[in-house]
Amino acid sequence: MMEFQSLAEIASLAAQLPEADEAARAAALARQNSLTKPPGSLGRLEELALFMAAWRGTARPTIARAQALVFAGNHGICAQGVNPYPQAVTAQMVANFEHGGAAINQLCRVNGAELSVIALDLDQPTADFTAGPAMTEAETLAAMARGAAAVDPEADVLILGEMGIGNSTIAAALATALFGGTAADWVGPGTGSDAEGIARKISAIERGLARHAGLDAMQTLAALGGREQAAICGAVLAARALRIPVILDGFICTAAAATLHAADPRLLAHCLVGHASAEPGHRRLLAALDKRAVLEFDMRLGEGSGAALALGILRAALACHNGMATFAEAGVSDA
Amino acid sequence: MMEFQSLAEIASLAAQLPEADEAARAAALARQNSLTKPPGSLGRLEELALFMAAWRGTARPTIARAQALVFAGNHGICAQGVNPYPQAVTAQMVANFEHGGAAINQLCRVNGAELSVIALDLDQPTADFTAGPAMTEAETLAAMARGAAAVDPEADVLILGEMGIGNSTIAAALATALFGGTAADWVGPGTGSDAEGIARKISAIERGLARHAGLDAMQTLAALGGREQAAICGAVLAARALRIPVILDGFICTAAAATLHAADPRLLAHCLVGHASAEPGHRRLLAALDKRAVLEFDMRLGEGSGAALALGILRAALACHNGMATFAEAGVSDA
Repeated sequence: MMEFQSLAEIASLAAQLPEADEAARAAALARQNSLTKPPGSLGRLEELALFMAAWRGTARPTIARAQALVFAGNHGICAQGVNPYPQAVTAQMVANFEHGGAAINQLCRVNGAELSVIALDLDQPTADFTAGPAMTEAETLAAMARGAAAVDPEADVLILGEMGIGNSTIAAALATALFGGTAADWVGPGTGSDAEGIARKISAIERGLARHAGLDAMQTLAALGGREQAAICGAVLAARALRIPVILDGFICTAAAATLHAADPRLLAHCLVGHASAEPGHRRLLAALDKRAVLEFDMRLGEGSGAALALGILRAALACHNGMATFAEAGVSDA
Repeated sequence: MMEFQSLAEIASLAAQLPEADEAARAAALARQNSLTKPPGSLGRLEELALFMAAWRGTARPTIARAQALVFAGNHGICAQGVNPYPQAVTAQMVANFEHGGAAINQLCRVNGAELSVIALDLDQPTADFTAGPAMTEAETLAAMARGAAAVDPEADVLILGEMGIGNSTIAAALATALFGGTAADWVGPGTGSDAEGIARKISAIERGLARHAGLDAMQTLAALGGREQAAICGAVLAARALRIPVILDGFICTAAAATLHAADPRLLAHCLVGHASAEPGHRRLLAALDKRAVLEFDMRLGEGSGAALALGILRAALACHNGMATFAEAGVSDA
């Protein structure tokens, strides 16, 4: 199991963790070019097959086991009126996940992922970041460790999602601190804030940024983030150590993982982003990470829903990669 | 079974065929707004669920049976050197479909569609449209009838695709004749034409358009189209009569169905377009039809591959629509 001794060490992990297997990627490309289709004609399905080959270290990767992890947390910033839903909804939605009634349950079922929901001390919200750091270093490391410990070493792909009333404000705060611009550049309606609610979100973030200036990426996670954000980072790192490719979800999930990118961009090399969220900050975030989302579906739900939807596309990509006949096998004339 | 007496009657079918059930759509929307998520937060998944509800005429549509039909034909226009592959590849790829080795086989398997491949007189290519009409009216109607007869009345959704060496030239010719612009506006590399091959495609289309001017939409299908294009039109109409929603594939499949749109735009109201092809004419065609593709994946293979990929998204949309708990059922507080 992956252990995290300090936030200061995280950036240095990039040099120690596995890299993509370029030989496996090249072998997968050679296979793609032998299959009964014009070369490149499966477009991004071919890219996804090569990505999986490189990270799984085999020319013909498969998904026998897909794991989905949804981390839930509560946030002191809700005291600033940043969300129209009561904070109790976080626990209510966790119960909904556990009873199979949420979107993520249906999407995991239809695309064959095993879902685990991990509620992170919901009765102890993080501190209000306008008044002080959201988490101590110890709290942050503990949440990261819980995220890392949840990763199934037998998984072939890991889907990450989150639930936490108020956490679109957390995401916008992290993005502003990590990538610059103004809070207004990164804030959107989230679960459904009106103009006044958005103004409260911007104000809270501006006060938080003023209070927590000059921090490095991982210190920023502690100061402005939450437990589900830290758990996502821990899971991303554990997956990397296991060479398990990750599908990140939308704005909130990507913003959490972006703290690792800001620490060292290599730390997210094994991560896809499942969809481009309708939450406006997500496109800006994708540009900052230089990643193109798998899907664009105007979704803005969280829970890992966009990542679980993208799993179906990944399965289709590998079905073609592994199941198609070559020109030679099928007796089809090449151009 | 649907019968077609003449090409002249096709446009008049629009007034006789079933319309979308707006009461079912409204009931599906009410359900969507009761589910445990912020309203609208599943984005285009919600739109797809409503589309299915409207065409299946029920608030909670399901896909028990998905049918995929791939029509194959050969084209006299190949005499003009419009394709780098030998025409024998059409029959070779039909054999590949029948043996399960093509992309469409894998995509149908992974997304749960039953595939039928219908080879339309491959040993009798249509006439070279630079020298005369590609098909007689009788040949066109016969191919339409074969397409219509292939539709399974028990299907809940129909995926359409095609195979035919040379048929990206057929598609560009149809699009130019139906929607205007120059041949160069609609022609692309297809299976892999180089600049000289593209010039040959444009030249062939220009000569065909000069020879077959002043025709209506369905006459244009006979003059410039092929059997698989006519079969696609027949299948689209038969599906409409049965209230079966259709997923069209890329440029070639959409261009075939576009003849119906040009006859009467209402004839394609029950059709989605599964993906926006990398073949450049497809985006222009989508604009002409005022349709947004479900996926954008830089694919350009045909065979129904993009439509079959989109089926997985449609299944996910209905899984959420039918499987999610309402706020009341889950005991989750609304905003």
